[in-house]
Amino acid sequence: MDIIRTKSDLREIVNKALGKGQTIGLIPTMGFLHEGHLSLMRRARRENDLVIVSVFVNPTQFGPNEDLEAYPRDSEKDITLMRSVNADIAFFPDADDIYPYGYATYVQVEGAMAQTLCGRSRPIHFRGVTTIVSKLFHLAKPHRAYFGQKDAQQVAIIAKMIQDLDFDIELVVCPIIREADGLAMSSRNRYLTSRERSKAKVLSQALHSAQAKIKNGERSAAAVIQNITERIASVKPAEIDYVSVMDAVTLNDVQALRGKILIAVAVIIGRTRLIDNVQFEV
Amino acid sequence: MDIIRTKSDLREIVNKALGKGQTIGLIPTMGFLHEGHLSLMRRARRENDLVIVSVFVNPTQFGPNEDLEAYPRDSEKDITLMRSVNADIAFFPDADDIYPYGYATYVQVEGAMAQTLCGRSRPIHFRGVTTIVSKLFHLAKPHRAYFGQKDAQQVAIIAKMIQDLDFDIELVVCPIIREADGLAMSSRNRYLTSRERSKAKVLSQALHSAQAKIKNGERSAAAVIQNITERIASVKPAEIDYVSVMDAVTLNDVQALRGKILIAVAVIIGRTRLIDNVQFEV
Repeated sequence: MDIIRTKSDLREIVNKALGKGQTIGLIPTMGFLHEGHLSLMRRARRENDLVIVSVFVNPTQFGPNEDLEAYPRDSEKDITLMRSVNADIAFFPDADDIYPYGYATYVQVEGAMAQTLCGRSRPIHFRGVTTIVSKLFHLAKPHRAYFGQKDAQQVAIIAKMIQDLDFDIELVVCPIIREADGLAMSSRNRYLTSRERSKAKVLSQALHSAQAKIKNGERSAAAVIQNITERIASVKPAEIDYVSVMDAVTLNDVQALRGKILIAVAVIIGRTRLIDNVQFEV
Repeated sequence: MDIIRTKSDLREIVNKALGKGQTIGLIPTMGFLHEGHLSLMRRARRENDLVIVSVFVNPTQFGPNEDLEAYPRDSEKDITLMRSVNADIAFFPDADDIYPYGYATYVQVEGAMAQTLCGRSRPIHFRGVTTIVSKLFHLAKPHRAYFGQKDAQQVAIIAKMIQDLDFDIELVVCPIIREADGLAMSSRNRYLTSRERSKAKVLSQALHSAQAKIKNGERSAAAVIQNITERIASVKPAEIDYVSVMDAVTLNDVQALRGKILIAVAVIIGRTRLIDNVQFEV
């Protein structure tokens, strides 16, 4: 595996691979890798000649009071994990190379999709995400890009961006990987105290019990939202940011459950904001 | 020459050419082609295996009170001219294919560069330009993209976008092509009545006389602006939108002339808004 730190070195490798007719799979990450990331890399390994994993804690997607500085980092362990799944390229760019002095260009999915859910409490977040992902697409020139369903809104927004801007890239969305008790894997889980950690399972429990009710015939979004809200609110200290039942593609709220449905929650446990979701067809 | 009307047909041709290791040159236009466009195509023809000319009057770069509907169109003549310079692909997409229902993603160079000059009277213009150019870059996957120096601010903004978003594309900027009396060629010149047409040469005359003064030692931007303003204001009916002396890369105003300088003017003659510029090193 090659460890690459500059855009120009990455470009050289990418153009050489394309010249040989190789296919490229890209996994954009913020590092502090876990089984969720590894599942993306394993799939990319099966489907592409060249597997590029980028590690960049992207400042433009963090608000002024968010955890940019505190975001967990462990590049040694990240490299070991990437090697374990036979990634070809680990790309660790510097922030100054990605956003040099005078940087001014942004890619934005406008309208409701990026303003709802996490966009409400994180107003610049998705503009930062679509900008860095566009840049990584231009640098790595992937045939396929791999993202986790854990970040459901991010996935919907990137799908919209790929479609709208005519990127010739296949978006591959991989299932949420969960801990034994159901908690969705996330680099931010390490912020949880052990007491909080044991409470955190309420997100997935509430979602799965709602899904069971829907399987048994429940079709009212309001009833589902109430059910999840009550379940999560019963746990202290858990503060609900949102519980939302939506069309999985447009992220528009639905009243009656039909078609591709996404149920997403964001909950603050102690000082840690956790998200989780389930997606299914009714 | 192939005439292509859908994104998917273009993508097929492009990917086939790249698979054969061919280089691609793209000339994005709004049609109603003139010698200025042809100079771009001739240069692209010399430098690339596949020359793609797009013709699309891009609605997102026109304000609500601008000339989107009236913008001159003549696709028959455009095709004849493209054939005359041996272009390979004429791409005439439909607006519905480029901006389908629900379209929501925009690329924007933020800050002063896009708000000054034409950005002041045309606030959404450059956001529309950078969005459509990004889409055409993703569709045509060019190695080189050709633009005319006539649209100096557009060129500076696209250069900034290419750099910021890490597009692996060489921007080729070609000199302004002028009529015999010095008027910069533009599809919008056809709006001029014959009386206005004869007055319109004042833009290039004022710019060139300013340039002569600078050659003779003038270094004050204020004096140059005053000189150009007086010269243009002496012609009726000519209403000055701006006369600006700037750093050619950043488009920041300068006080003293040094380095790469851009002098740009926008003037409304009758009901037609004309732009012109000179760029040089002091």
